[in-house]
Amino acid sequence: MTDAQTFHEAAAGLLGPRGFTCDPDLLDRWLTDWRGRYTGRALGLASPTSTEEVAQFVRLCAKHGVPIVAQGGNSGMSGGATPDDTGDSVILSLRRMTAIRHLEKDSMQITCEAGVILQTLHEAAEKEGLRFPLTLGGKGSATVGGLISTNAGGTQVLRHGTMRAQVLGIEAVLANGDVFSGLVPLKKDNRGFDLKQVLIGSEGTLGIVTAATLQLAPAIGERRVAWVGLAGIAQARQLLMHCEQQAGDALEGFEVLPRHCLDAVLAYLPDTRSPLENEHAWYALIELVAPAGATDGLDTLMETVFETAMERELLEDAVIAANESQAESFWHLRESISPAERAIGPAMQHDISVPVSRMAEFVETVSPQIETRFPGTLVAGFGHLGDGNIHYHVLAPEAAVAGEWEEREGKAISAFVHDRVTEYGGSLSAEHGIGQMKRDELGRLGDPVSLRLMRSIKQALDPQGLLNPGKLVPLAPETARP
Amino acid sequence: MTDAQTFHEAAAGLLGPRGFTCDPDLLDRWLTDWRGRYTGRALGLASPTSTEEVAQFVRLCAKHGVPIVAQGGNSGMSGGATPDDTGDSVILSLRRMTAIRHLEKDSMQITCEAGVILQTLHEAAEKEGLRFPLTLGGKGSATVGGLISTNAGGTQVLRHGTMRAQVLGIEAVLANGDVFSGLVPLKKDNRGFDLKQVLIGSEGTLGIVTAATLQLAPAIGERRVAWVGLAGIAQARQLLMHCEQQAGDALEGFEVLPRHCLDAVLAYLPDTRSPLENEHAWYALIELVAPAGATDGLDTLMETVFETAMERELLEDAVIAANESQAESFWHLRESISPAERAIGPAMQHDISVPVSRMAEFVETVSPQIETRFPGTLVAGFGHLGDGNIHYHVLAPEAAVAGEWEEREGKAISAFVHDRVTEYGGSLSAEHGIGQMKRDELGRLGDPVSLRLMRSIKQALDPQGLLNPGKLVPLAPETARP
Repeated sequence: MTDAQTFHEAAAGLLGPRGFTCDPDLLDRWLTDWRGRYTGRALGLASPTSTEEVAQFVRLCAKHGVPIVAQGGNSGMSGGATPDDTGDSVILSLRRMTAIRHLEKDSMQITCEAGVILQTLHEAAEKEGLRFPLTLGGKGSATVGGLISTNAGGTQVLRHGTMRAQVLGIEAVLANGDVFSGLVPLKKDNRGFDLKQVLIGSEGTLGIVTAATLQLAPAIGERRVAWVGLAGIAQARQLLMHCEQQAGDALEGFEVLPRHCLDAVLAYLPDTRSPLENEHAWYALIELVAPAGATDGLDTLMETVFETAMERELLEDAVIAANESQAESFWHLRESISPAERAIGPAMQHDISVPVSRMAEFVETVSPQIETRFPGTLVAGFGHLGDGNIHYHVLAPEAAVAGEWEEREGKAISAFVHDRVTEYGGSLSAEHGIGQMKRDELGRLGDPVSLRLMRSIKQALDPQGLLNPGKLVPLAPETARP
Repeated sequence: MTDAQTFHEAAAGLLGPRGFTCDPDLLDRWLTDWRGRYTGRALGLASPTSTEEVAQFVRLCAKHGVPIVAQGGNSGMSGGATPDDTGDSVILSLRRMTAIRHLEKDSMQITCEAGVILQTLHEAAEKEGLRFPLTLGGKGSATVGGLISTNAGGTQVLRHGTMRAQVLGIEAVLANGDVFSGLVPLKKDNRGFDLKQVLIGSEGTLGIVTAATLQLAPAIGERRVAWVGLAGIAQARQLLMHCEQQAGDALEGFEVLPRHCLDAVLAYLPDTRSPLENEHAWYALIELVAPAGATDGLDTLMETVFETAMERELLEDAVIAANESQAESFWHLRESISPAERAIGPAMQHDISVPVSRMAEFVETVSPQIETRFPGTLVAGFGHLGDGNIHYHVLAPEAAVAGEWEEREGKAISAFVHDRVTEYGGSLSAEHGIGQMKRDELGRLGDPVSLRLMRSIKQALDPQGLLNPGKLVPLAPETARP
């Protein structure tokens, strides 16, 4: 029996026929990421149902030297959960670990397994009059394990922080099969290095998250949503600061988009119209919230914020949603930008952050540079202005052929964007992570000391290099050079 | 010339006479921690004034194999900044690095060097109409570098989190003298492992923090402070949940203390009286705040919260401070607990956390156990109930002789407390860190997998073991056993 056969038999024996398969029909859909950008091969798909099974399986892989690609909802944005094309790796799916182990209403804490889907988590919290204050487009597939491993963001980061801020404790299986049991629901714990922080955002390269204790928040009592027309992104920034000062913690969301994005959405969605009568260069979507039981002052607050903003000429026009259904419709416009742009044609997408104070300058300076350098392109930046994070898309010229254009122009465009972002002291990955998509760019532009530190930690925690090889951690210069 | 002489000369040459000294008169006060619990020896005191000087000095130490004990305000609670008694180490003081490099009002961010004192940071923020939302008793001496290295807490954690939550970026010198430049003022950055998280709370064992970019918060517009009488700690917990639900983010502080603590404070402070007419078994200090410009609803909110609490019998009596000076006086009572208890006599102090939901049960069960097992002692737990963190003091019997009693009984009492805390899924260090005080206890009670992980990371980042040896990281079992 070859070593591969021995491994297969042992894996099947350990996890059973539902827990381990090499059947291409079952394996295939997990070999390509949801956007179809990356496809790899794998020698099998493991789907354990308990932490102990994960630990035993990881030990087996360590023994046989089999690399492990952990996978949640397979809805990542950077190819981090797609295996490489060697076919040497096994996919370790956490999707069957779906237990909500514990929800403590009084403490507003939930402990759930890695495979719990974000939408399910939202519903579990809502049932208890609470909420989990992080959401994103892929909420119907993204899992708790994936959200933690990528330190996911979304539209509520302004107020509540990224996934990291929601995590009270995690349980994870390390490269040698040890189980790190850090599910402590403690709000304060200073017993040495905060080990969970090392694992959060490490994209399966340092350990495999199997469960987490998450902080829930009180349910929102009411919200008020406004759609605002603006002269430009610089004015959006002024208005953001005004809202932060006036509304404080009531400010739950502040998203921006240029006119082009709204036009694309209106063309894409049937039977919709712009919330405002006239056109504006930029728009902002602003949400204020009040906790349940303390909603009295919300209308007053909203009115004060906008009246003073009008007086100070921080906006051109604004409409406050008259009811929840109109509020939903405003948000629907924002959430339809990505599909609307996909319908127009190919684009190079970048998930970047720069210091909030420099975002307007960045957009106003760099966008024309790109459009000049790559004639026919159109730059559309939209998203989380309050976090200094925008999704910065470079749309192909009208005549461009999908696939061909990205192949020919994509790398140069992205390198240009990342170079500018780096000059502005920004990040080439604000919330989507590194995965396989940006690993080489991180190696090219990352601070050498940071890269050395990352490699040291990777080497210390995964000396065999079996956890998600080829992802996130850039190769050392001597290895990377041809 | 001996190697020691070579090192001294090179250090003096590098840092100048003010930057490096072996003069016992100058060195002495930094060899003992502020509470006088730990005293060590050192071969010199280095006081560099720039990151580059720190880096060069660390390189020099690495070359000569000289261990480095980083020190800020020397006001730590666990002896983490006091050298051991070998005299082999050098103290690296960050106190001369006091520059506020940058304060950006619009972005509410400040970048300052490690030696900036917390009080100075508060004042710098206030001058711009902002605030730094972390405070603690030692604010007149604690430095930014020390606060980050110990992930300090305080009375505002309930609402704003520990120091970790305030840090946007750090700059640190690593064991080999490399400068980790992570001062990015980015709100979102997912470029691989979050390296700053590894350094925060590592107590100078993985690197030396030289500067940080911190998040500021809008100034408080107004606050309302209430002093509440309670039947017991279980009722305090009920009231806390009520406040969280009703007041949401307006709840800035929730501190508790038993009658004994108030009595001690009233005896200690001249001309003070209890805020309430009658005595109660427990008291809570509750603060609600509103941001500047949105203070209208605060009185209504406070009244609603307390009226409904009265209706639901969640408290026995309450008084809302009539003005800011009375609010100050309530807080002064809370802040005087530690000195008041010190005036009474010796005590074994523990800084513990348990899950918030189990705190009442813990106090009600374990305190009598201790008082039975160690006759004559009195247990006083007070502090941050909202964080599940209390300072849990075991006061000596009346006849006990200071020094002698701690020597004879201290270790057994602390071990008993830590054993119980561990049974309750809690932490033996909620906010004061490990230092040298709790390292052996962490080794005894810590999860073996976590301890192995800590040692791996320590070994990877400081292979020579020169950064703050003997602190925080418990020895491996094979080394620790005699």
